[in-house]
Amino acid sequence: MNRPLSYEPTPVWASRLSAPNSKKILLIIIDGLGGAPHPDHQNMTELQAAKLPNLDRFLREKQAATGLICPVGRLGITPGSGAGHLGLFGYDPFLYHVPRGRLESAATEEEEMVEGEVRARMNFCTLDQEGKILDRRAGRISDCSRPAKLLNDQVKISGAEIKIVATKEHRAVFMLKPPINQGWSPEIIDTDPQTTGVPPLEARPLKRSVGVQKTAHVINEFVRQAVQILKDEAPTNGVLLRSFTGWTHLFLPDDPRRLPKFNTAYAVKSAAIAAYPLYQGIAKVVGMDVMKGATNLKSEIALLQQHQWDYTFFFLHYKDPDSRGEDGDFVGKVAALERFDEMFPEICAMQFDVVALTGDHATPSVIAAHSSDPVPLAIAGGMKQTHDPETHFDETHCRSGWLGVMNGPDLMPLLLGAAGKLKKFDGFA
Amino acid sequence: MNRPLSYEPTPVWASRLSAPNSKKILLIIIDGLGGAPHPDHQNMTELQAAKLPNLDRFLREKQAATGLICPVGRLGITPGSGAGHLGLFGYDPFLYHVPRGRLESAATEEEEMVEGEVRARMNFCTLDQEGKILDRRAGRISDCSRPAKLLNDQVKISGAEIKIVATKEHRAVFMLKPPINQGWSPEIIDTDPQTTGVPPLEARPLKRSVGVQKTAHVINEFVRQAVQILKDEAPTNGVLLRSFTGWTHLFLPDDPRRLPKFNTAYAVKSAAIAAYPLYQGIAKVVGMDVMKGATNLKSEIALLQQHQWDYTFFFLHYKDPDSRGEDGDFVGKVAALERFDEMFPEICAMQFDVVALTGDHATPSVIAAHSSDPVPLAIAGGMKQTHDPETHFDETHCRSGWLGVMNGPDLMPLLLGAAGKLKKFDGFA
Repeated sequence: MNRPLSYEPTPVWASRLSAPNSKKILLIIIDGLGGAPHPDHQNMTELQAAKLPNLDRFLREKQAATGLICPVGRLGITPGSGAGHLGLFGYDPFLYHVPRGRLESAATEEEEMVEGEVRARMNFCTLDQEGKILDRRAGRISDCSRPAKLLNDQVKISGAEIKIVATKEHRAVFMLKPPINQGWSPEIIDTDPQTTGVPPLEARPLKRSVGVQKTAHVINEFVRQAVQILKDEAPTNGVLLRSFTGWTHLFLPDDPRRLPKFNTAYAVKSAAIAAYPLYQGIAKVVGMDVMKGATNLKSEIALLQQHQWDYTFFFLHYKDPDSRGEDGDFVGKVAALERFDEMFPEICAMQFDVVALTGDHATPSVIAAHSSDPVPLAIAGGMKQTHDPETHFDETHCRSGWLGVMNGPDLMPLLLGAAGKLKKFDGFA
Repeated sequence: MNRPLSYEPTPVWASRLSAPNSKKILLIIIDGLGGAPHPDHQNMTELQAAKLPNLDRFLREKQAATGLICPVGRLGITPGSGAGHLGLFGYDPFLYHVPRGRLESAATEEEEMVEGEVRARMNFCTLDQEGKILDRRAGRISDCSRPAKLLNDQVKISGAEIKIVATKEHRAVFMLKPPINQGWSPEIIDTDPQTTGVPPLEARPLKRSVGVQKTAHVINEFVRQAVQILKDEAPTNGVLLRSFTGWTHLFLPDDPRRLPKFNTAYAVKSAAIAAYPLYQGIAKVVGMDVMKGATNLKSEIALLQQHQWDYTFFFLHYKDPDSRGEDGDFVGKVAALERFDEMFPEICAMQFDVVALTGDHATPSVIAAHSSDPVPLAIAGGMKQTHDPETHFDETHCRSGWLGVMNGPDLMPLLLGAAGKLKKFDGFA
């Protein structure tokens, strides 16, 4: 009686019930969707302040079911973007360990990591004359391929091959390639202190091993040379590294921590449309087809139109509300939400059987950072809920919705069920 | 640091906290209780349309705590009746695998399965002249012991002993007894296609093994002979088999998938009162005492009165709302709910310390099938909630209740706690 039973995570048990059909599901993840009351704006949240006539009409007409969602499935936890998305895709990030560095690098055209390689997410940043961080994102410059090239051309560390791949705006991937017969170790603490006014941190080993100490030494030498090489390149005169990832994080084929493939688990054919590399990387890691070429919401919607008949599951990512929230820009975040609402009718004009709207985490502009607040969620198609004529898509309305406060890894079964893609469950034989 | 912790399901951890007392809990499961807005009935659900003055008064006077419940503990999943009940009894059906065939057969007076035996749920059905299914339930005839006897007398398959046990209405249990030194295999796909207008399916092997193929062959031969024998017996001129179950599904005593006994886990003495065999079978499988003899709600209540002092936990099952919902009969389901309300005062007149009302799944008549919607729940005794004078027991009211949207396997601890049958928890030693 006291022997434990094995616990099956969502993609495993859902695969036992999945029943493919031709119905189409669209999951729109509005990055940083949720907000918090702002004292300078009549204590309204960004969603409450935003005029969203198209979304509001959509909820009423489609009798959308609403609720709040904890993307990573734990109240109180502030999700990073990688974990938030994995949770919404059904992969409990407390069970499936996928470091951010791997997600970031997956979106590049580079090969998957090889044995002994270490990668990390890199930000170009702005340092002041004393070497303290002025801006963790170098003013969100539009492109960082110039400073990346400078580093690739000029960094010279004996016995270490380093490659920087610029991805989007201030973002890049740091790659430390393994020399013959030798490997690097990813057990290194971030150099990004996640705040301004202080210098970047030393890369410190998390383990007392010669290999890890050697890796930390190389990374610190890289950072030292980078600051030299970039000294006249403000705003991109510094670098911040986080989420060091090694080859071992890919897991062997029989390792239960290896991610089950999205399409196999849920019996769908899935496409990802995202302008930013991290979100393309997450989609690629779970096995979605990544539609390339979009640079903003408008071109994302064009891609969706182009591919709308080719897939049965679509993940569409909209970045702007998170960026404005991170900047502490209440008005900018409201405007970003309203821009989404303006374009939403183009999405509604396409034929999806189930449309879900949510976020990977809240980014209240009042705190200018991700928060642990549960995020608004609406699902149209399937379960029906009656909305009064005053319905507005925001935290308060969603809180009283049919779905309650749910956990991220429970979302996929809900969407599959709403689209008739799950068999009735009467026990497994 | 990398070894996982084991997960303890409800009956296991609850047993560590259970503290018996003489208080009495009554759990009423109204089959198919939940509904959905019906466009032909002013977009009301069946509960919203039903007049339930006694229930409504009960909620107010007892300050019942209300909420919604996902019986199998997963949003988006449509529960079958077996899985829904197991979930409400605390047995997560995604962990404890109990096939429907075993639940159905447990209610008969037959012995438990022996090694090599295979059983299944059987429906007598109505076939048209081309052999296509007209009615999966043979018009819900009141008794099928005549066609069952015809099959028992006339089916002859060399090397196979088949027994059909009529249970209630169109329902029966199919038993394929093992010959000496030989066993049958349950890895067979249902012959019930779960729809009409098509012929029954072939019994196909789920595994490539001689034993399974032989079993499938015998089942197909049985179905062929049954159609011959019953050809003039319309509406019971066909058979549908589902949920083939073998002896191996009973699990050995040390198998963690074996169900912990209800009485031991929760430290109660439990009685089940149900007119229909499946629900008696579920109760028997978890170890409740099954009170026999009831044929409808009225005689169920009489049994409850008779045994009210003999037990500390009572499970009372009311079938009619599900049957009418499955038939797509909105008015009939409303009437079935109102019949319950009329008899409810007889239940209230007895002395239970905690009374809970819920369902094993929703059966909205608008879709004439089970649905994945969470089901209304009310618990009187224990936690108190204030209700305004307009309170009506329905989906909308329960949605805004104290309990939120909860999971089936969390219900038993809630009921035990409300009855003071759980110790304060301050960590396990």
